[in-house]
Amino acid sequence: MLSTRISRSLASRLQTQSTQVLRPLGNKTRSSGCQRRSLTTVTTATTGSRHRRRNMGYIAFAATTVTLSYGLWRQNEAHCDAVSDDKQRRAEGPITDSDPMRLRMESFIKGLQNRIVQDIEAIDGKQFSRTAWQRTEGGEGITCVLQDGNVFEKAGVGVSVVYGQLPKAAVEQMRHDRGKEITADGPVPFFAAGISLVMHPHNPNCPTVHLNYRYFEIENPDGTPKMWWFGGGSDLTPAYLFEDDAIHFHQVLKDGCDKTDKRYYKDFKQWCDKYFYIKHRGEARGIGGVFFDDLDDKPAEELFGFVKEMGNRFSTSYLPIVKKRMNMKFTPEMKRWQQIRRGRYVEFNLVWDRGTKFGLQTPGARIEAILMSLPLTSRWEYMQEPEASSEEADLVEVLKNPRDWVPLD
Amino acid sequence: MLSTRISRSLASRLQTQSTQVLRPLGNKTRSSGCQRRSLTTVTTATTGSRHRRRNMGYIAFAATTVTLSYGLWRQNEAHCDAVSDDKQRRAEGPITDSDPMRLRMESFIKGLQNRIVQDIEAIDGKQFSRTAWQRTEGGEGITCVLQDGNVFEKAGVGVSVVYGQLPKAAVEQMRHDRGKEITADGPVPFFAAGISLVMHPHNPNCPTVHLNYRYFEIENPDGTPKMWWFGGGSDLTPAYLFEDDAIHFHQVLKDGCDKTDKRYYKDFKQWCDKYFYIKHRGEARGIGGVFFDDLDDKPAEELFGFVKEMGNRFSTSYLPIVKKRMNMKFTPEMKRWQQIRRGRYVEFNLVWDRGTKFGLQTPGARIEAILMSLPLTSRWEYMQEPEASSEEADLVEVLKNPRDWVPLD
Repeated sequence: MLSTRISRSLASRLQTQSTQVLRPLGNKTRSSGCQRRSLTTVTTATTGSRHRRRNMGYIAFAATTVTLSYGLWRQNEAHCDAVSDDKQRRAEGPITDSDPMRLRMESFIKGLQNRIVQDIEAIDGKQFSRTAWQRTEGGEGITCVLQDGNVFEKAGVGVSVVYGQLPKAAVEQMRHDRGKEITADGPVPFFAAGISLVMHPHNPNCPTVHLNYRYFEIENPDGTPKMWWFGGGSDLTPAYLFEDDAIHFHQVLKDGCDKTDKRYYKDFKQWCDKYFYIKHRGEARGIGGVFFDDLDDKPAEELFGFVKEMGNRFSTSYLPIVKKRMNMKFTPEMKRWQQIRRGRYVEFNLVWDRGTKFGLQTPGARIEAILMSLPLTSRWEYMQEPEASSEEADLVEVLKNPRDWVPLD
Repeated sequence: MLSTRISRSLASRLQTQSTQVLRPLGNKTRSSGCQRRSLTTVTTATTGSRHRRRNMGYIAFAATTVTLSYGLWRQNEAHCDAVSDDKQRRAEGPITDSDPMRLRMESFIKGLQNRIVQDIEAIDGKQFSRTAWQRTEGGEGITCVLQDGNVFEKAGVGVSVVYGQLPKAAVEQMRHDRGKEITADGPVPFFAAGISLVMHPHNPNCPTVHLNYRYFEIENPDGTPKMWWFGGGSDLTPAYLFEDDAIHFHQVLKDGCDKTDKRYYKDFKQWCDKYFYIKHRGEARGIGGVFFDDLDDKPAEELFGFVKEMGNRFSTSYLPIVKKRMNMKFTPEMKRWQQIRRGRYVEFNLVWDRGTKFGLQTPGARIEAILMSLPLTSRWEYMQEPEASSEEADLVEVLKNPRDWVPLD
């Protein structure tokens, strides 16, 4: 019969992603040394050193075709060195302020993931399942999921770190869609690291939360950043509106923004309302929060400080709300309404969310990690509309006309 | 508290779509007479005649902006006449074989809808709710939905009849994407009529079914068809595989196809497997059926006969399966697996189905009718995979490797 067999399923998944064939390395095949290095780093994991790899007598190559999120993967020697250097630094540890930003961001999000997972486990009483994954082409991640918990129906916290090469077409699209002035003829080495989480509690009084912070870097051939930016945000999706909760959530985010720039909160709050919008329903996904992308208007050091501040505020912004709402009484009718709102959440993620859409259309993408954000259960009723002046109608009113929960200054 | 108030919700919906302002008609505004006609047909419904409309002293115009599925709506006099002539014929009734194909198709699908609704009500014991709707710009439909029935969790049967003008860009896209050689400079009048149904039973042993048949016509200024085609099909989505059911379903469809063309079943069976494919999962939505589009390879009369034959086979293809499976015992684990498969159904419809995607991105589209196909409930578990050699694995095997259920000839 049916069972959820995470470890077995994971094993077969990882096998698919890193299936390798080892064969003797002759001089003739030495020219593909970069691929050799890239793959060797997977097999030697954190203990690899450049010296050991140079002495290896085998070339490994992927037997399966797995393409990276941003398209074709083509290594060049210099980029391989940057990847290797990072691996070495990680192995030597710990990462300090003098390390490259990409390693510091990676270190930060992994630490944040650990802390959030611990905080949620303390509230829920059930453990997350932890899945570490690697991809042959360069990249790794940790996905933590708690399902059917005591407080949470489903909670997922994922971290991913990806090294890659932006193919020409993707560079062109970045120039066109995002105004990035990237001057290069061939593929461009890039790095991306991010944390992403979604939590769906059981109790309909307790809101769903989403958070995502990421760092993106386009590199010079020597591995130093040529261009970089931060993106992310956090937003709240209640099934029942508690104004106090909305004010608290926004206030914590605003206080975080204000430490770096007094204009940030207003700008990013409005950006959030605009982004998390279910166009075909004419309503927002939830009561908002903050959202930003392509952020590079201050020195990287300052913006990294900003992102750390915001990430670290997750527990303060959300956990007091959970504790207040998780044990409130509710009726089957309230549960039904929550399930309908979950359906809207699915609609937003599958139809409008750029990241999800892009991921699902990318061959070889890790679908389970992309769809981790979907609720455990959801519901679609035909022509369901809340009764006038009901609590459900109060929520819809706010979704149709986003409110400023704290003064915008 | 929460309630599903279909009648009230419908009333407000229809009001939004047909909100009109009446004002005296001066000679100066007579040039927009076509718009006047178009809107008058809505208010006079089936009793309108050209003579009555000519004597009207008011011009009505829509106060809300509702755009048609295929874009901007612009009437021309000749097209208005065609619309009016059809209205008159409907009012005079009954439609016979000497009437234009569009009226015959409309008459057929409305009759088929009635018969299917009656058949399903006889099995379920619960009545469908019936919603008739009209759109100011030209078009009407009937949506029948049965929710939380005794046998069916959700069943919807919808009919829509739309008159419109394909704007230049849509004509261009039809030329490019579908190879339609439409020679016209301005907007092109079109007509579309279709029936669409999805049924999700409670019992996990009982499969979900989908059916859709449609007729599309591009018209000459005098209302005669310049170009036309049929499209549609029917497919089955079980949560548990019963080979007998799959064979029965396919055999009934094949017998229907064979009456018109011995090649149809093979071609349309393969087209169905290709179309209802969840690309990001690498699996088919279900065990297939038939699917075709742009069908104009025989005289319209013959193809209309084919479409009628296939539509009329719905009850024979599906109801015996329902009767065999609807009272079978099942465990909570089987229900859970069914809910997971429903999640995949949602993924296909929201991410890959061209019609749904197009509808959701069209301003003013009737969202409730588009999303009628979604199941009442669904479920997403992280990294859920069926146990090897289980009944669930048997289904997945068939979804990953579509089978020929009956000999292809």
